Amino acid sequence: MKGVFPPIPTPFDEEGDIAPQALKENLERWNDYGLAGYVVLGSNGEAVYLTEQEKARVWETARDAIPADKLMIAGTGCESTRQTIATTRLAAEAGADAALVLTPHYYNGGMTRESLNRHYASVAEASPVPIMLYNVPKFTNVDMDANTIAQASHHPNIVGVKDSSGNIAKLSDIVRLSSPDFQVLAGTAGFFFAGLTLGAVGGILALANVAPQESIDILHLYETGQWEEAADLQRRMLPVNAAVTARFGIPGLKAALDMLGYYGGPVRSPLMNLAEDHRQTVHGILAQAGLV
Amino acid sequence: MKGVFPPIPTPFDEEGDIAPQALKENLERWNDYGLAGYVVLGSNGEAVYLTEQEKARVWETARDAIPADKLMIAGTGCESTRQTIATTRLAAEAGADAALVLTPHYYNGGMTRESLNRHYASVAEASPVPIMLYNVPKFTNVDMDANTIAQASHHPNIVGVKDSSGNIAKLSDIVRLSSPDFQVLAGTAGFFFAGLTLGAVGGILALANVAPQESIDILHLYETGQWEEAADLQRRMLPVNAAVTARFGIPGLKAALDMLGYYGGPVRSPLMNLAEDHRQTVHGILAQAGLV
Amino acid sequence: MKGVFPPIPTPFDEEGDIAPQALKENLERWNDYGLAGYVVLGSNGEAVYLTEQEKARVWETARDAIPADKLMIAGTGCESTRQTIATTRLAAEAGADAALVLTPHYYNGGMTRESLNRHYASVAEASPVPIMLYNVPKFTNVDMDANTIAQASHHPNIVGVKDSSGNIAKLSDIVRLSSPDFQVLAGTAGFFFAGLTLGAVGGILALANVAPQESIDILHLYETGQWEEAADLQRRMLPVNAAVTARFGIPGLKAALDMLGYYGGPVRSPLMNLAEDHRQTVHGILAQAGLV
Amino acid sequence: MKGVFPPIPTPFDEEGDIAPQALKENLERWNDYGLAGYVVLGSNGEAVYLTEQEKARVWETARDAIPADKLMIAGTGCESTRQTIATTRLAAEAGADAALVLTPHYYNGGMTRESLNRHYASVAEASPVPIMLYNVPKFTNVDMDANTIAQASHHPNIVGVKDSSGNIAKLSDIVRLSSPDFQVLAGTAGFFFAGLTLGAVGGILALANVAPQESIDILHLYETGQWEEAADLQRRMLPVNAAVTARFGIPGLKAALDMLGYYGGPVRSPLMNLAEDHRQTVHGILAQAGLV
Repeated sequence: MKGVFPPIPTPFDEEGDIAPQALKENLERWNDYGLAGYVVLGSNGEAVYLTEQEKARVWETARDAIPADKLMIAGTGCESTRQTIATTRLAAEAGADAALVLTPHYYNGGMTRESLNRHYASVAEASPVPIMLYNVPKFTNVDMDANTIAQASHHPNIVGVKDSSGNIAKLSDIVRLSSPDFQVLAGTAGFFFAGLTLGAVGGILALANVAPQESIDILHLYETGQWEEAADLQRRMLPVNAAVTARFGIPGLKAALDMLGYYGGPVRSPLMNLAEDHRQTVHGILAQAGLV
Repeated sequence: MKGVFPPIPTPFDEEGDIAPQALKENLERWNDYGLAGYVVLGSNGEAVYLTEQEKARVWETARDAIPADKLMIAGTGCESTRQTIATTRLAAEAGADAALVLTPHYYNGGMTRESLNRHYASVAEASPVPIMLYNVPKFTNVDMDANTIAQASHHPNIVGVKDSSGNIAKLSDIVRLSSPDFQVLAGTAGFFFAGLTLGAVGGILALANVAPQESIDILHLYETGQWEEAADLQRRMLPVNAAVTARFGIPGLKAALDMLGYYGGPVRSPLMNLAEDHRQTVHGILAQAGLV
Repeated sequence: MKGVFPPIPTPFDEEGDIAPQALKENLERWNDYGLAGYVVLGSNGEAVYLTEQEKARVWETARDAIPADKLMIAGTGCESTRQTIATTRLAAEAGADAALVLTPHYYNGGMTRESLNRHYASVAEASPVPIMLYNVPKFTNVDMDANTIAQASHHPNIVGVKDSSGNIAKLSDIVRLSSPDFQVLAGTAGFFFAGLTLGAVGGILALANVAPQESIDILHLYETGQWEEAADLQRRMLPVNAAVTARFGIPGLKAALDMLGYYGGPVRSPLMNLAEDHRQTVHGILAQAGLV
Repeated sequence: MKGVFPPIPTPFDEEGDIAPQALKENLERWNDYGLAGYVVLGSNGEAVYLTEQEKARVWETARDAIPADKLMIAGTGCESTRQTIATTRLAAEAGADAALVLTPHYYNGGMTRESLNRHYASVAEASPVPIMLYNVPKFTNVDMDANTIAQASHHPNIVGVKDSSGNIAKLSDIVRLSSPDFQVLAGTAGFFFAGLTLGAVGGILALANVAPQESIDILHLYETGQWEEAADLQRRMLPVNAAVTARFGIPGLKAALDMLGYYGGPVRSPLMNLAEDHRQTVHGILAQAGLV
């Protein structure tokens, strides 16, 4: 799981239906970069807005466009254990190399260390492909602590975690407490370089959709000991990252992709497409960073 | 929408599959009481754990067991507008009299007053049955304010709201600011009597699953001016209500039903069945309240 | 502690110094109503903005203006146990009948049930006057649960609690679990009538500063069995209560007092006096409620 | 403000009184290290538990023990602007080189960008010494955003900020948006190295009380381009940092100092001294890190 993975958005046409050709063309452009693979149907893929049939279609389309030497990580987490297993198997059939499994969260009071570990163990047992944990408290209001993650890390079919909490002390705790071969991926570019210095092996970064080369460069500079250059690039990318995540969300990410020649297109309701004034702000940020 | 509605749990067998016969028998027992109807597949129905096919089967089974003079309100809210519309139509086909539509919430930062109102308006336009808003911040971390609800209340096919925030000042604001015929239902027994005194016309109460007569009595005593008796009964029921909601959740509700001769049965994973010591606590609370 | 107590604001002159004459005149007007007493230097008194010397002066001035048959409850909670004891003794010397002791909260992680109970026990031991607990999570982010309060209720010198959480199910739990003679006061008018029906014996209500008669009437109507009239009045007062609490805070409360012929005057910095447009909103709300 | 500053705890004797000799001896030991100075009466100094007289005494004692070439930064923030000014002047008279001013927070709803900026501008105008902002949401539940801090940075007597939010993307935003000579200090060792790579010039680190040399080394290794060694040391220190901050708080910090030959001593109530089993955990962590 080493390397940089963009969690790609799902292209919709003007009617809100999946636009497979746009998905294919986006991937063909991204394939030119040294990305390690893609997360297909993570949070940025509006996964919670798709039916099972649509999910299967997106994974199949993506797999066709993703070369065999790049990983397809499928976001398969659902609220129930049984549905998560079914969806994970569907993804594996569609060619996913691994599954990224969101914490269940609706009944957040019931999501204890014990229930989460039982859930992940059941999914890992039943899954034909390796499992990665996915912790993103800003969306779920469930924040798995380092000990819960470390406990799960000892299952042979649980191979890593995407942590999007942004807490680097916790990321370091996860690295320290988990099984030695457990792979920790930074879940947001906001702490990518910092995460690498504390033991992360890569990142699943919304930023990598709009700045794939820069994202890869941060990792490469880090790996070749050019840390100052890495930190510099990281710092330059932070406003771009904020624009396509916390500040403007998926509407911002899709607007940015439109500006960069990819297919961004509309979001699904109840999300709303980016308003014109915000579009101009995003354009200014991309221009400032030298991306347009 | 006047009256008391239990948001019924969904019975599962030991394999975790839907147990339609148990659902039917539970409803037949509840039918003996003067309940105004049922919410089928609300939060207490573990709706987020069911597939579309399972939802249809539950609604059809329930409708067969619910007399025509009692309402079946179907919980149909999904994350996307289009899926919510599809599910609402499914419920209507299965015989639902109204749909209870949860706030979308995964992308909570994007759930503004404008996007929520667009969502609810679209669902209301497309729905063959009347729509009720469902606000339950403890699960969604989205809390629609009184003004947002009041704005939605002016749509001709949006007829009411279940508010489970427990904030009685806000409930009163909703009553005051909404269109005159908009119906406000208390979403938890914790503030049922208080809600009635501030303009609520009924309640969707987990408590009504285990104490249907007492729940109805609170309303009846309120309506006939016997407020002290109503408050007294309300006070006696609070520990029972806590046991089947905040304190022990759906596992507590199902355990209590088992003790009362209904079919409670297991919850779906990742929820966990109530541990034995908690089961005894629940039994003690039911005994204390004179329910067993 | 039965009855209605306004938590009075502290008058400052244009230089921000204490205005004792204004305090005296306000109290003389309030003395015309059947209030049970006053909370002097609670949250609405900007207590956290006063030095020990200023606190002593305010209590002495207030005591002179408060007849012997009305209680002066002094807000004396500080962060440390020793300072709380010192301040409580100061208040007692100045003639306070009881002390209202805020939960310490800065080191919120350390404010466990055990540390809070030790704190309150130490203060109660050392205090010449009875102690009331004061729970106001919106300011402190510490929310004492019903069991913690019930445990403290057994100390002979801890006689009651002001709970401002607005959670009526919890208020009922406190009544049920505490020692029989423990007195629970509603901490906000938002749930005053509801609180009375669940066992509260009175209220410490910001509303009572601007609508003393109406606040007393709610209690009186409740006590004489005229519950519908009580609920009606409660409902009418809710927008006024919101204006002088959650919506516009102490600046709103002081502005409303100015409009009603009391001395409101400026707040201390960093609070900011109410802006002109908000002033007009407050005036409209008071007019709507028939108070101006 | 470049360099490492421990926010030192305040030594109390067994009666809970200030122990000036212990304070002096602690400082004499810390003086042997290349620390840039000390924060006296920050959050770790239990400042909220001290009277004005005690604060003056602590600053005077500390100043006597702190060489002229090391800075004494005094924590002077109070809830009111006028009290903050008075306390800041007191600190300056006692020899403080700068004042670290906590955000007011009790009336958190009133702490807007405008009111905070007015507060800081007033304090900065009136202060004989330079002002540093202090943002620590875990204690205050007020989180100044990067724009608020940037706006304050343009005041000539506001020279820097201690940000303890742990959010490195925000730290980078502060650096980018503030005036060029504005100095950003990491407020916790959890993101010290990461903060340096994003433009922080030093740190105010609880860790530096118990591991002064290691804290200095992280900065030195960073400054001399030995980033891998810096990150390594940072990683090794994280469990120690957690033990003396989030995990065991000031009781943990004082216990650790006792183990290291400094005077830790008791905390003031309502804080509670570290229980014996936690003491052993802290000892194990210090041993593991090679500090005892």
